[in-house]
Amino acid sequence: MRIALGIQYDGTAFCGWQSQPHGKTVQDALERALAEFARTRLQTVVAGRTDTGVHGLGQVVHFDTDLDRTDFSWVRGTNAFLPETVAVQWAKPMPEAFHARFSAFERTYYYMLYVNPVRSPMLTGRAGWIHTPVDVDAMREAARCLIGEHDFSAFRSSECQAKTPVKHLYQIDIREAGDLIHFRFRANAFLHHMVRNLMGSLVAVGRGRYPVAWLADVLASRNRDCAAPTFMPEGLYLAQVGYPEAFAVPPAHLGSVPWSGIWSD
Amino acid sequence: MRIALGIQYDGTAFCGWQSQPHGKTVQDALERALAEFARTRLQTVVAGRTDTGVHGLGQVVHFDTDLDRTDFSWVRGTNAFLPETVAVQWAKPMPEAFHARFSAFERTYYYMLYVNPVRSPMLTGRAGWIHTPVDVDAMREAARCLIGEHDFSAFRSSECQAKTPVKHLYQIDIREAGDLIHFRFRANAFLHHMVRNLMGSLVAVGRGRYPVAWLADVLASRNRDCAAPTFMPEGLYLAQVGYPEAFAVPPAHLGSVPWSGIWSD
Repeated sequence: MRIALGIQYDGTAFCGWQSQPHGKTVQDALERALAEFARTRLQTVVAGRTDTGVHGLGQVVHFDTDLDRTDFSWVRGTNAFLPETVAVQWAKPMPEAFHARFSAFERTYYYMLYVNPVRSPMLTGRAGWIHTPVDVDAMREAARCLIGEHDFSAFRSSECQAKTPVKHLYQIDIREAGDLIHFRFRANAFLHHMVRNLMGSLVAVGRGRYPVAWLADVLASRNRDCAAPTFMPEGLYLAQVGYPEAFAVPPAHLGSVPWSGIWSD
Repeated sequence: MRIALGIQYDGTAFCGWQSQPHGKTVQDALERALAEFARTRLQTVVAGRTDTGVHGLGQVVHFDTDLDRTDFSWVRGTNAFLPETVAVQWAKPMPEAFHARFSAFERTYYYMLYVNPVRSPMLTGRAGWIHTPVDVDAMREAARCLIGEHDFSAFRSSECQAKTPVKHLYQIDIREAGDLIHFRFRANAFLHHMVRNLMGSLVAVGRGRYPVAWLADVLASRNRDCAAPTFMPEGLYLAQVGYPEAFAVPPAHLGSVPWSGIWSD
């Protein structure tokens, strides 16, 4: 039987998603907990491998098992063996045709940016931080050229293993609340470091280091060296993974995110 | 010269505010940082001593010093020696008449409560958590009897050192957002554990363990044994301390709290 799980995690203390020999990744923590609960090793396949420090709100994994457990028993049983920083939100039996990574046709990431001369202890590890104001309208205007199907090589990490640098970016939405700027990126898929690289260049425009039109030139160059440096991972959240309706994958549990109301539309 | 500081902290890893021989309190961290920056010991007086696990958004302290530093230099200099979980938000010279504790005439606390069968990693240490739904209207109705000047002995910890159990509770406001219930308590002052004890009894009513009218009986009893147990500290935030306008104390820096918009009115 194939089981899908919805996972949330605070990525601060983890070395990213993907399993490593040192065992300090979210996948390692999850598979250790599953092994404890199921009394057998279960190998998971994930929708989106997140970097060190990146958080998961709507991460999805699947695994195959012969064990017969109720959905909520998978949730509660696995959570009993997970650290406080990771939790299974839901579990659901899936047809063999479901694949956490390959069935996904859309990913949504949030980025939370704190703009203030003084750091905030409540946002440590949870938001990117810049000291000086940015021109949000300039960022919005610059972002427009990115929407659509493009070769995003200029925003691709050298370690990226994607088959093609061409991705379809559906939306970049930017909203302000207090001293926070919230970004939402929606695409069919993202290249390695793509959101953090886009953030770096958007913030560079917002700070006035480059004019609005610069971003279209960077995109057209397809050259990573033309873009700004990769932005910090702390404010990045994998928010939602979209699957064909037929699979009826439960939505990410965003009611647990105190600021998710900003995106409730 | 008397200097006032606005302080924010994530209380999770601290044993409360007040200095202890083991040094693991917020006051210890702050005074160590001040000593590093000022190269001399500076003793602080705080507006409200918070418990282990309780957070500070608008905490205020004062201290006396002969050192002549700019306001922002106190902020930046002290922050350089503070852990990531504490930060000075502002600094301001004050007249001798100002006293962080005795000049305060009003305190506001927030409590954030998460209601969901499954725990949320992003809320670990940051919100109280209950598994089953509560009747928010019943809590609102029950809270009404608490408003005004009362003897709050029924909600007072046995360790409370306040001179009188009579406090004036101005407001209990309850708002829902996603799976979160936000509480705001505003009073001239609070007894030790008073907000957590009020929360415990409000939640007991919300869960239907007691009828709405029970809370007035508890209040009238002035007997701690009649109220529900003390609620968990994780969701509690000292949000704001009110001083006479003449002191022009800067407001708490709530723009750094991603969910503070719920109280922006």
